[in-house]
Amino acid sequence: MTLPVDIVLASASPRRRELLERIGIRFTVVPSHVPEEELTGESPEQHVLRLSRDKALEVASRRDVAGRWFIGSDTIVLRDDTILGKPANVEEAAAMLHSLSGREHRVLSGFAVHDRQTGLTLDDVVSTKVRFKELTAMEIAGYIATGEPMDKAGAYAIQGIGVFMVLGIEGSYTNVVGMPLCEVVAVLERLGAVSLFENPV
Amino acid sequence: MTLPVDIVLASASPRRRELLERIGIRFTVVPSHVPEEELTGESPEQHVLRLSRDKALEVASRRDVAGRWFIGSDTIVLRDDTILGKPANVEEAAAMLHSLSGREHRVLSGFAVHDRQTGLTLDDVVSTKVRFKELTAMEIAGYIATGEPMDKAGAYAIQGIGVFMVLGIEGSYTNVVGMPLCEVVAVLERLGAVSLFENPV
Repeated sequence: MTLPVDIVLASASPRRRELLERIGIRFTVVPSHVPEEELTGESPEQHVLRLSRDKALEVASRRDVAGRWFIGSDTIVLRDDTILGKPANVEEAAAMLHSLSGREHRVLSGFAVHDRQTGLTLDDVVSTKVRFKELTAMEIAGYIATGEPMDKAGAYAIQGIGVFMVLGIEGSYTNVVGMPLCEVVAVLERLGAVSLFENPV
Repeated sequence: MTLPVDIVLASASPRRRELLERIGIRFTVVPSHVPEEELTGESPEQHVLRLSRDKALEVASRRDVAGRWFIGSDTIVLRDDTILGKPANVEEAAAMLHSLSGREHRVLSGFAVHDRQTGLTLDDVVSTKVRFKELTAMEIAGYIATGEPMDKAGAYAIQGIGVFMVLGIEGSYTNVVGMPLCEVVAVLERLGAVSLFENPV
């Protein structure tokens, strides 16, 4: 469904890969080596934008990586003004889920697309509100026992078993999965990287 | 993750089946034979509730079907006050998608759970707002060419390729997929049919 392009996804996330694959975009995956640390004084929006740009540019800077357009992305969960990253252990996952129970939080995903040929980088950040039902101790323990929360920002996956907790969202769904798909596709189209459904399937 | 129960999903929808399976609920599938026609004077809410109840009760009434709890569900797309069902052909699918382009619509899913032992039936209807991006003629034609729209209410599937159109939603995501999962699970729990994560995985 796309031109025979040279798109590189600078992310190891299977969720982001699945989103792009699902709508027929062809790309290669080259995970970045950018550390996901917070800088002092950085807002959550600045944080995800910086990491998204750094990921795209870091992979684009490698001489041994072929491609023209490089996609970087970063997702965090925000409880009030606190960034919840990936839990370090089971106790931290339980504390995160407990703190999200019965209330609303935000998911922020940043993304950046770098065009190696023109040097242009376009980026944006999208915010989605997510509302959880009240979780019982059994549900939190049972969900953690599935193993799913351990490598996910905020200790849950909306596209996985974690869906049982999500009463509703407000905004982009794919943004909660890991990348705001409509917005990313619009930027890829603007940069000439894809044209959805141009080549009939 | 559930008690060894006798839950019957009275629906042929692979989307509903996948949602229940994903969170570890065990059940059998017995599609109902209820025709999905509109009755004069019926509101959209009444329509999905009636069909949900009819589906659950029709399957529960069959003597050759084992089970205690019967789940029926029905999903429609509402453009203003017009119900969009499954498109009859490619032209109707194109007209539906064109009419949903660049604007907001609602998805209504009803569900009913009938307890054969007590005779009790609990039901509810959940509404989710969905906002589409502006679609080009190429996108509409290309999406229809994938075949995905033809058996879907409103001619799209949010959990499929159709995700490329969805800018955002407001409310339950699973409701747009085909069944409001949190609400269905809450009713199943109230009726004693399941207890999520009770048996560790």
